[in-house]
Amino acid sequence: MSKIIDFYFDFSSPYGYLASKRIQAIADAHEHEVNWRPILLGAIFKVTGQAPLTEAPLKGDYAVMDFARSAREHKLVYNHPTVFPIGAVAACRAALWIRDGAQASNERTSNFIHAIFDAYYAHGKDITNPEVIAELSTPLGIDSAELLTALQQQSVKDALRLEVENALAAGVFGSPVMIVNKEVFWGNDRLEQLDRWLASGGW
Amino acid sequence: MSKIIDFYFDFSSPYGYLASKRIQAIADAHEHEVNWRPILLGAIFKVTGQAPLTEAPLKGDYAVMDFARSAREHKLVYNHPTVFPIGAVAACRAALWIRDGAQASNERTSNFIHAIFDAYYAHGKDITNPEVIAELSTPLGIDSAELLTALQQQSVKDALRLEVENALAAGVFGSPVMIVNKEVFWGNDRLEQLDRWLASGGW
Repeated sequence: MSKIIDFYFDFSSPYGYLASKRIQAIADAHEHEVNWRPILLGAIFKVTGQAPLTEAPLKGDYAVMDFARSAREHKLVYNHPTVFPIGAVAACRAALWIRDGAQASNERTSNFIHAIFDAYYAHGKDITNPEVIAELSTPLGIDSAELLTALQQQSVKDALRLEVENALAAGVFGSPVMIVNKEVFWGNDRLEQLDRWLASGGW
Repeated sequence: MSKIIDFYFDFSSPYGYLASKRIQAIADAHEHEVNWRPILLGAIFKVTGQAPLTEAPLKGDYAVMDFARSAREHKLVYNHPTVFPIGAVAACRAALWIRDGAQASNERTSNFIHAIFDAYYAHGKDITNPEVIAELSTPLGIDSAELLTALQQQSVKDALRLEVENALAAGVFGSPVMIVNKEVFWGNDRLEQLDRWLASGGW
């Protein structure tokens, strides 16, 4: 039995943001580790033929209301971004570079991911801008010049492409998706079910 | 404050079926009544441009797995129908005729809805067949000859069309959707949140 929760998310996904705030506590409660897996829903939707949630008639209006209502329930800050959705390619590459790089640490990865999410959903910053990403990474002990260089490297670009391919192969079609021992859970509103699953050993 | 939970569902919706088994207990716990509102997702999807869940790549496979997993968690019988999805027009009209007819009773309506759902998801019956619907209604004290006649009446057809129009106007885009005092909750996996909402008075 692996003790890992693969946590797939897109930085442009409000439910990914909300779940990112809650997944660590669930992992801790069951002595699991969170494996942070940033992906690009845009690339995944090209394969599955889906469209961004907020673009669907009626469902989109519900979603925008529900992002805020779900945030309020869990006392999380949520300001719906004026530019939404976005293609978070640079932030995604940066997160993978930090996660898998020479100075990889799960804590630093997690801190970086939270910083990017907060910048977008709490502070309205443009997280598609590499300079903004670099600025956010400095207080976390990440060399911003190195980071900006990494974003241009083919190996880093390839790493993201591979991560998305692997996600699709694992059955990931949305954000957030949590996978534990091949069991797939989709959605911020499934964290309670994941919690019960881990507590009970499944059913 | 109204003490009513409007419960919108499609007989062809597995999550509608699962939620139909659990909504009454939540309503009872908070001294609310369930207003059963059968609708046709097919008609709603024409307006919103959505497609049946199980037809989406990856997401569809997840859904079929999750119908059964969600049923198991709540100890509910679920046998994925061999013919799926279906257009449950006749069952929908019958439910409305029973709900709004001369001998209307919320208990009889609820019993009928459970009988149709069980026939489809537990016993693999063809609930698109009016004869099957009539047969299921007899033990509930419903005159099956009257019911079969009603299914042909323009007033009953109009009642369903109106119910779908009203659902769209209220923001219903899926199944199940629960509405309490204009607050909309979508999905079987939001019943817990609805429960907390009713317990706390909202947030």
